[in-house]
Amino acid sequence: MAKIKIGPSTKIYPMPALLVGANVDGKPNFMTVAWGGIVNADPPMAAVAIRTSRHTHKGISQNRTFSVNVPSTDLVKETDYCGITSGAKADKVEVCQFKVFYGKLGTAPLIEQCPINLECKVAHVLELGSHTLFVGKIEETHVSEHCLTAGKLDVSKIKPFAYISEPAQQYLALGEVLAKAFRIGLELK
Amino acid sequence: MAKIKIGPSTKIYPMPALLVGANVDGKPNFMTVAWGGIVNADPPMAAVAIRTSRHTHKGISQNRTFSVNVPSTDLVKETDYCGITSGAKADKVEVCQFKVFYGKLGTAPLIEQCPINLECKVAHVLELGSHTLFVGKIEETHVSEHCLTAGKLDVSKIKPFAYISEPAQQYLALGEVLAKAFRIGLELK
Repeated sequence: MAKIKIGPSTKIYPMPALLVGANVDGKPNFMTVAWGGIVNADPPMAAVAIRTSRHTHKGISQNRTFSVNVPSTDLVKETDYCGITSGAKADKVEVCQFKVFYGKLGTAPLIEQCPINLECKVAHVLELGSHTLFVGKIEETHVSEHCLTAGKLDVSKIKPFAYISEPAQQYLALGEVLAKAFRIGLELK
Repeated sequence: MAKIKIGPSTKIYPMPALLVGANVDGKPNFMTVAWGGIVNADPPMAAVAIRTSRHTHKGISQNRTFSVNVPSTDLVKETDYCGITSGAKADKVEVCQFKVFYGKLGTAPLIEQCPINLECKVAHVLELGSHTLFVGKIEETHVSEHCLTAGKLDVSKIKPFAYISEPAQQYLALGEVLAKAFRIGLELK
């Protein structure tokens, strides 16, 4: 299995397509982020990497709160739009017709159409170079009732999607179930 | 679209299934991580969240280096095994028949069978509670030659997969292409 070296790169797959929200100058704004995820269990924490020049960066810095919204596949166009447009130049909420609501933090805007909404309070800020890593304590989770099956979240209803950059920059749906986790590995024990 | 609150949670979808490598007491070890990703572009950096009790945590702390290996779907059994077994009790490399090699850092073990291998040097360490977030500068990327198409990485050959915890803990393949990124959103401009 021949290997080649391509130098330092940002190749990890899959990455999620997420909408990160912040109030900027008092107005809700959202940007698309693939560089985000969960980083702690107790207490639950999420981290998002935001380029320092972004409008959202300004908003998170102003309020020290942000949201992570998981869009479903029917929001792929809006998700992409939020990644290629600056909130400094357009009202993304209006263009995307997002229904915005607020939870317990009061300053982290949430998108009603997204099945999952995390409210985060900044706990750590790491300046890494091009990007700032905002680590947030997750203070509340809002989920869309229609994404539950027998009271449990159901990914087949949430319909999240991934961002993949190779060979082309694309959004991909999730596919077939390969195996049960914490189970199939027992065959090697 | 009715919403319900479920309290602070770790619900982000999709998450990647990654194998994080470290030498522990001089011996290569790998664990499965869904809480990891890219966090900076310039210079390229990756972050992985590791529970403080894990064997891998000890190894990263010893050498201040680690690897991120992207497994393909044919390694789903081995990937799961590395998540449910401690390197303190089993030689995971032997059980999984991983062919281990080292790159420029010398102490970050890499799995030849994984299409993508990132060598990382610890740049920041954040103690978050149950987990430590290790932020690493990516010093080199190794890719399997058979995953290239016309000289470019091709996700259809890499075949990465996702870990999803709801409604059941499962590994899912990637599915259909939904749209071109940085393109479909232009329809809303």
